[in-house]
Amino acid sequence: MLQPSTVYFNGQYISKDVVKISPDDRGFYFADGVYEVIKFYKGTGFMLKEHLNRLKNSMTGIKIVYEKVDDLGEVCNKLIKINQLQNDFAGIYIQITRGVSVRSHNFPPVSISPTIYCYSFPFPSFMNEKLMGVKVTTHEDIRWHRCNIKTIALLPNTLIFQEAFEKGAFECLLVREGYFTEATHSNVLFVKDGVVYSHPDSNLILPGITKSAVLDICIKMNIKVIELPVKAAEIKDFDECFLTGTGSEVTPVIQIDDKVIGNGKPGPVTLKIQKEFFKMTYSE
Amino acid sequence: MLQPSTVYFNGQYISKDVVKISPDDRGFYFADGVYEVIKFYKGTGFMLKEHLNRLKNSMTGIKIVYEKVDDLGEVCNKLIKINQLQNDFAGIYIQITRGVSVRSHNFPPVSISPTIYCYSFPFPSFMNEKLMGVKVTTHEDIRWHRCNIKTIALLPNTLIFQEAFEKGAFECLLVREGYFTEATHSNVLFVKDGVVYSHPDSNLILPGITKSAVLDICIKMNIKVIELPVKAAEIKDFDECFLTGTGSEVTPVIQIDDKVIGNGKPGPVTLKIQKEFFKMTYSE
Repeated sequence: MLQPSTVYFNGQYISKDVVKISPDDRGFYFADGVYEVIKFYKGTGFMLKEHLNRLKNSMTGIKIVYEKVDDLGEVCNKLIKINQLQNDFAGIYIQITRGVSVRSHNFPPVSISPTIYCYSFPFPSFMNEKLMGVKVTTHEDIRWHRCNIKTIALLPNTLIFQEAFEKGAFECLLVREGYFTEATHSNVLFVKDGVVYSHPDSNLILPGITKSAVLDICIKMNIKVIELPVKAAEIKDFDECFLTGTGSEVTPVIQIDDKVIGNGKPGPVTLKIQKEFFKMTYSE
Repeated sequence: MLQPSTVYFNGQYISKDVVKISPDDRGFYFADGVYEVIKFYKGTGFMLKEHLNRLKNSMTGIKIVYEKVDDLGEVCNKLIKINQLQNDFAGIYIQITRGVSVRSHNFPPVSISPTIYCYSFPFPSFMNEKLMGVKVTTHEDIRWHRCNIKTIALLPNTLIFQEAFEKGAFECLLVREGYFTEATHSNVLFVKDGVVYSHPDSNLILPGITKSAVLDICIKMNIKVIELPVKAAEIKDFDECFLTGTGSEVTPVIQIDDKVIGNGKPGPVTLKIQKEFFKMTYSE
């Protein structure tokens, strides 16, 4: 896939080829940074403001000081236009690291500037998976205890996802102390007797923006939501399961490991929510 | 501090200024890499082979394939010489990431090459701290569950260390489920009634190379070692505490939070071990 070539790097719009990340960037040697991915539906960033607010929260979480986050909304829009992605489904990736400094575990002086890097990319929608549903695996949630912060320290997520990927799975659900938390790069929700079960926001999961949109849809559609973690051992009692996320949008899960969910097809509550979500996005 | 300017980057010895890390390096956006730090005592790398072996283990742990790790021993030696550090106390930092690829949670094709980056630096020995002992703090061990792999996903360590640093502490001991595991960038050992207590190697701690040297010293000196985790709540029952690590070497701990250890001075067993360690290193 050809990558659009103009990116935003520390205040400048330049060709990606000439971006030079310093080997002294704390993002490179300490994973000392945060990020966001935003989906643009034909030129409109979905819940862009919410993504930028979460970015601010992530920075607060790891104490990176950068005052101009709100200006990045305009940067996103500009990148979409420059790279001629305004008529398509596209993504924006934003990464902010603490900046460039000689390696030392303590923070560098606040006088150094964070590294700001944003790029756009084509972001197709995998409609087949969304309509047919997907199979997922499960794995112990071995990540750190601040999963509510969207940091670039994603090695655990990638290692776990790779195992799922090699098994042909679409995602991998994480299980901590017997309870589903989320997936490697999506939130996961369950349905039983028409009621949606969603893990409450806590330090164990990312406060998903698509998840919050889905919970709003539930309110609007009179679908009851219970914000409680679901026990992995009780999965047989649930009728439906679905993933939410910027890329996953609303993706039905039809099988978890060797356990078929419901009748092995996307469930009615999931499809009702998905339909409403698609109205909010693909019709824009 | 003036940094030596010649580094090793993907097969070449070049000036650090011209090293260009790609923004598509998985080390930059996923923390998908491993590292080592080796101390050189007047030109001799301390347990260099052991460090390279651990690097191999770390790579195996995250499934990075790179066959030429043993060649990096010569790279280390050459960097020390090129940068005229052979008569001093110096360090070598080695970082290997999975390489450059468009961002996707699954691994890129194995055909891509890992990024190999090594640099040397002056590594003074903080003798005052080692002779007088240090104060440390404690913090819940919120890291992931594969702390035996020396990865660059060090954000948790830096965040925790920064809190300790702001309190004027030298290090911070991590406590998981009531037991000391290790510190943010050192191992920690305790002494009671002349017996050394060391956390057994497991997925919860880094298999410290200096720690292994210290355990060998204990055998040689007829100091009994028990490899068991120490309960944080039982710290009052212990006479001594010390840190080990490439930088910490053998550093006595004289206070943990507000609890003075022993009589507030480096303990006799610690000093005996430290003396032996210094013989192995500073007399080389």
